[in-house]
Amino acid sequence: MTILFKPIGYVRNPHKDVPRHWTVSDLEGDLDILPEYGGGMADIAVGQRIVVLFHFDRSLPFEPEHLHQKKSYTDEIKGVFSICSSIRPNPIGFSVVTVLAVDGGRIRVRGLDMFDGTPILDIKPHTEDHRSHEGP
Amino acid sequence: MTILFKPIGYVRNPHKDVPRHWTVSDLEGDLDILPEYGGGMADIAVGQRIVVLFHFDRSLPFEPEHLHQKKSYTDEIKGVFSICSSIRPNPIGFSVVTVLAVDGGRIRVRGLDMFDGTPILDIKPHTEDHRSHEGP
Repeated sequence: MTILFKPIGYVRNPHKDVPRHWTVSDLEGDLDILPEYGGGMADIAVGQRIVVLFHFDRSLPFEPEHLHQKKSYTDEIKGVFSICSSIRPNPIGFSVVTVLAVDGGRIRVRGLDMFDGTPILDIKPHTEDHRSHEGP
Repeated sequence: MTILFKPIGYVRNPHKDVPRHWTVSDLEGDLDILPEYGGGMADIAVGQRIVVLFHFDRSLPFEPEHLHQKKSYTDEIKGVFSICSSIRPNPIGFSVVTVLAVDGGRIRVRGLDMFDGTPILDIKPHTEDHRSHEGP
């Protein structure tokens, strides 16, 4: 069973080095949305935080040896589903960025951790559940 | 340009009706991970919150008329990237659930908003950025 997706746009990031994670990024850049999806950008507002799902298009193909990996900034070895490595069974990235401006098909954002040209798969509102979530 | 993904497992949810969103769900069910990806579950711990990316496999095909949609629980019309509708250019869902137990290839969770049999694309640690994110 195979699932097919197409980019809705591309990340524009003039910086060659990107931070390891959006939680430690203040990088600014743009999300360029393809014209056919521009209408869907209605209601994206300055100051808002949005979820960006994207394709890790430059990551190595996933092999069984990647089920356990070293975290990028420590020596800990972890299961792939407990880390944010780009080498994953399905190389989908997830970042939360802040909207600085919306201009036509372009969303200016702060908090990028994607390389220039990264294909964007989806944009969603960022919602946080503020109820208590304790263990069982 | 087409991007191909494969399920890493499937949601098991005995309930026919699911809440409209994980932020208002206390439903319990299982994430059944395929044996070839079981090793990647190492380090998923009881009490932890995890991000689940999944395929909205029963949603209508996306058409230009879906660029603007009514929110499920209000009469507001919004751009598709500002709502969590399952009818999206790339029908990828995103939920945050709480781990109740891990048993072999099965993760028991609370907070489901996916139907039984939903294909799972990825599991990631849930990280929240507690820095201040003000507008520009």
